[in-house]
Amino acid sequence: VLLWLLRPALGVPDPAQREQLMLQEASMQTGGRMTLTVAEQKLDARLHRLKEQEMNNIPFPPAVHFFKAKPLIQQSEVFKLLHRMPKGGALHIHSMSLVSVDWLVKNVTYRPHCYICFTWDNSVRFVFSERQPFPRWDCFYWQLLQTLRDRTGDPHAFDLSLVQQLTLFTDDPEGKYPNQDVVWEKFEKSFIAAAGLISHAPVLRDYLYQGLEELHQDNIQYLELRSGLSRTYELDGSIHDKLWTLRTFQQVSNKFKLDHPEFFGARIIISVHRALGVSEVKAAVKEAIELQREFPEVVAGFDLVGREDSGRSLWYFREALSLPAELGVTLPFFFHAGETDDEGTDVDQNILDALLFNTTRIGHGFALPHHPIAKELSRRRNVAVELCPISNQVLRLVSDLRNHPAATLMSEGHPLVISSDDPSLFGSSGLSYDFYQAFVGIGGLRANLGTLKELVLNSIRFSSLSAQQKETSQKMWQKKWDVFISACS
Amino acid sequence: VLLWLLRPALGVPDPAQREQLMLQEASMQTGGRMTLTVAEQKLDARLHRLKEQEMNNIPFPPAVHFFKAKPLIQQSEVFKLLHRMPKGGALHIHSMSLVSVDWLVKNVTYRPHCYICFTWDNSVRFVFSERQPFPRWDCFYWQLLQTLRDRTGDPHAFDLSLVQQLTLFTDDPEGKYPNQDVVWEKFEKSFIAAAGLISHAPVLRDYLYQGLEELHQDNIQYLELRSGLSRTYELDGSIHDKLWTLRTFQQVSNKFKLDHPEFFGARIIISVHRALGVSEVKAAVKEAIELQREFPEVVAGFDLVGREDSGRSLWYFREALSLPAELGVTLPFFFHAGETDDEGTDVDQNILDALLFNTTRIGHGFALPHHPIAKELSRRRNVAVELCPISNQVLRLVSDLRNHPAATLMSEGHPLVISSDDPSLFGSSGLSYDFYQAFVGIGGLRANLGTLKELVLNSIRFSSLSAQQKETSQKMWQKKWDVFISACS
Ligand SMILES: [Zn+2]
Ligand SMILES: [Zn+2]
Repeated sequence: VLLWLLRPALGVPDPAQREQLMLQEASMQTGGRMTLTVAEQKLDARLHRLKEQEMNNIPFPPAVHFFKAKPLIQQSEVFKLLHRMPKGGALHIHSMSLVSVDWLVKNVTYRPHCYICFTWDNSVRFVFSERQPFPRWDCFYWQLLQTLRDRTGDPHAFDLSLVQQLTLFTDDPEGKYPNQDVVWEKFEKSFIAAAGLISHAPVLRDYLYQGLEELHQDNIQYLELRSGLSRTYELDGSIHDKLWTLRTFQQVSNKFKLDHPEFFGARIIISVHRALGVSEVKAAVKEAIELQREFPEVVAGFDLVGREDSGRSLWYFREALSLPAELGVTLPFFFHAGETDDEGTDVDQNILDALLFNTTRIGHGFALPHHPIAKELSRRRNVAVELCPISNQVLRLVSDLRNHPAATLMSEGHPLVISSDDPSLFGSSGLSYDFYQAFVGIGGLRANLGTLKELVLNSIRFSSLSAQQKETSQKMWQKKWDVFISACS
Repeated sequence: VLLWLLRPALGVPDPAQREQLMLQEASMQTGGRMTLTVAEQKLDARLHRLKEQEMNNIPFPPAVHFFKAKPLIQQSEVFKLLHRMPKGGALHIHSMSLVSVDWLVKNVTYRPHCYICFTWDNSVRFVFSERQPFPRWDCFYWQLLQTLRDRTGDPHAFDLSLVQQLTLFTDDPEGKYPNQDVVWEKFEKSFIAAAGLISHAPVLRDYLYQGLEELHQDNIQYLELRSGLSRTYELDGSIHDKLWTLRTFQQVSNKFKLDHPEFFGARIIISVHRALGVSEVKAAVKEAIELQREFPEVVAGFDLVGREDSGRSLWYFREALSLPAELGVTLPFFFHAGETDDEGTDVDQNILDALLFNTTRIGHGFALPHHPIAKELSRRRNVAVELCPISNQVLRLVSDLRNHPAATLMSEGHPLVISSDDPSLFGSSGLSYDFYQAFVGIGGLRANLGTLKELVLNSIRFSSLSAQQKETSQKMWQKKWDVFISACS
């Protein structure tokens, strides 16, 4: 802030000085110092006009629940432009929610040997098996899915019911999920339901390819996937280990890059659940160190996943998380932290602890603006926040996205990237919907093409790629960006 | 931030250093540097325990709409303590919503000569008149209220229906007020309905006394009332001017101070509606200058009221607002500004403009954390934000109060006072409910007795009282505070 601002004011503001202050504030926001080409300025003006129109809409999409906003967003001209925009990398997506549920239902559940079972709590389980599966504690009665679907006489309705099991979608999200506890319960249930489909070895291979395909369709060039590398199974019940999953991921992404030369690649952030004990996390950290040594191109680092509010804090796992430093090896951390609105609790210290453990990025960082010291630390050390607006709304941290705390971060130009967390579960896909919410809702009318450009460039800059790879990727991206600008301005 | 934080971290955090950072962050919050006596520390520990219990409640009151939360809050032990706490001044309350609607209905509408009329849009009007009132454009058929009430056969139900006309209360706030436009419409309707009661001269006198009484009951010692000084009428239809209203206010508050020697007093912030034109606001500013010259003890300053999002911006009125400075006189401003979540619009510049016009405080400042320059200016110039959490929730700026942007301001120790805006319309009263929301919801678990003490002291420090009056008031308050602490710790 300029010093003359602190002089006692006269009470009659000078319009030129006012203008200067407004410009100064605008220059502080994400992308505020970005220089735009003439063509970019033209598109920027168009975006501004479109956004202005959209802000008069009732309901205003970012102000209502995404399940109601989605059809409105799909009609938005701003959204259509954001969809076409080359968006760089998706740095925060979970492997269990990478591919649209429509594909799971219409493709995977139509494959032969797929069995389904209904549990006592109205959830479903799937398994592929060459013979009738054994009863399990939660599943006594397995039915061949194809037989059941035929018997219902209404395969369309049946498939819809499967979609509902595998996503959070409902017409009445506020009524059905009155609070965070309820929505998290359904959230974890849907993961368990999907696991039987995705962890079938032949499905996983197709699933990963399809996931990359969907990102590519959304004009995304790169992926860092959080994955537990869960074991997979074959039709005969035999089991593959984590190494198999990692190798498969590598093969599939190499194949995808061959098929789509403008795609930069995909890496894995090995993630374990925060419900585990210290010694188990210790073992997982050791394993991650080994896997990274073996697959340095694929393994980007390590994270803890699962709901922070009901889980164990990072500090609880300090012994496990200190291991790499103690062993003198590097294992980059990408911690979920601050995905909470319970201020002042133990869990609310996760952001500070993530930074003290030298995290590379912060997943969510929803609580960051309430932590001035952590915020300063994150900013100075260039630890970017992975902003996932739709996730935060659907999981009921915030309802009107204009109130998302990242509005403060964006106004200060805090290092940020946009991501989608669990797109298939939320019924979104790729990054376009989340970019829409960040650009129209959180950024408001003042977020502009410079903001978008910086957010996209951030996704390369703050990725786990090497300096060399970043340079190459950015050049590849710039070409696509130039084509986009000249097509849309 | 300490410089050693910027050194590359080793990955194994030092617990002592971590502790120091946490303490440093805690010391930055509102009240974070307050030294507490032993007795205060005891009460603080008790508050912390109680709050911890309350944060496990489902529903958590600050997370749900106040109309649903109110009965829960009333049962809260934290609330009971906040009610007993001497709270200093209420610096942001509007005169039309000062007194509980129960009193209006049970006392005022039971007075003789009260007529009621139902308008075409299902609203009501009241008027006191010694004979049958003339039809007006909006009111053709006036009935004597007492006759109508008797005729219904169920006076209780009838009175309840009147209460509903005069407040925003409903069992289904989200359904009935789906967005800000709808709730603001009902908000302004209720004001118009109440006007006929309150602007009856004999009622106004009692109304103001009752208003001070209700604040006093809530352990509040001082009031700055925003008032348009509307004209009042007598039974015979004769009209009193603004001077009469101002004199009446002075008489009533002097009488109240005589009856309650521990009450500091009450002042008026003259407020006009932002729907007026520039020349009308100019005339109002001139009038306010004169009234302040004539009643320096009563008139604190000037403000513009009405919904910012649909109204004219401060900059639109710049000619009028520059008047005092141009005339070389002082007219303190207390502008509503930033009561919006539309980022980047013209209205969103109101906060900066309020500061450039040298405002003494900022009403709401909801958008302040999104404006780093304005925030810095407000902080350095000690321009306090009047935080009215329940108002912001009921008027649908934010639903879960944990997401209120003031959480950021509190974490940074930004100058803040707590107020209630329109308590009777929202069904709250005094300041205790808003203190509860700020302390439990916005402040979270880390807000403590030091926070409360600083907020209360702020209400004296940032009031419009003279330095001398502030000193006296603070001493009076300290006595009540000491009694409170020794009774509760
Ligand atoms: Zn996540
Ligand atoms: Zn107000």
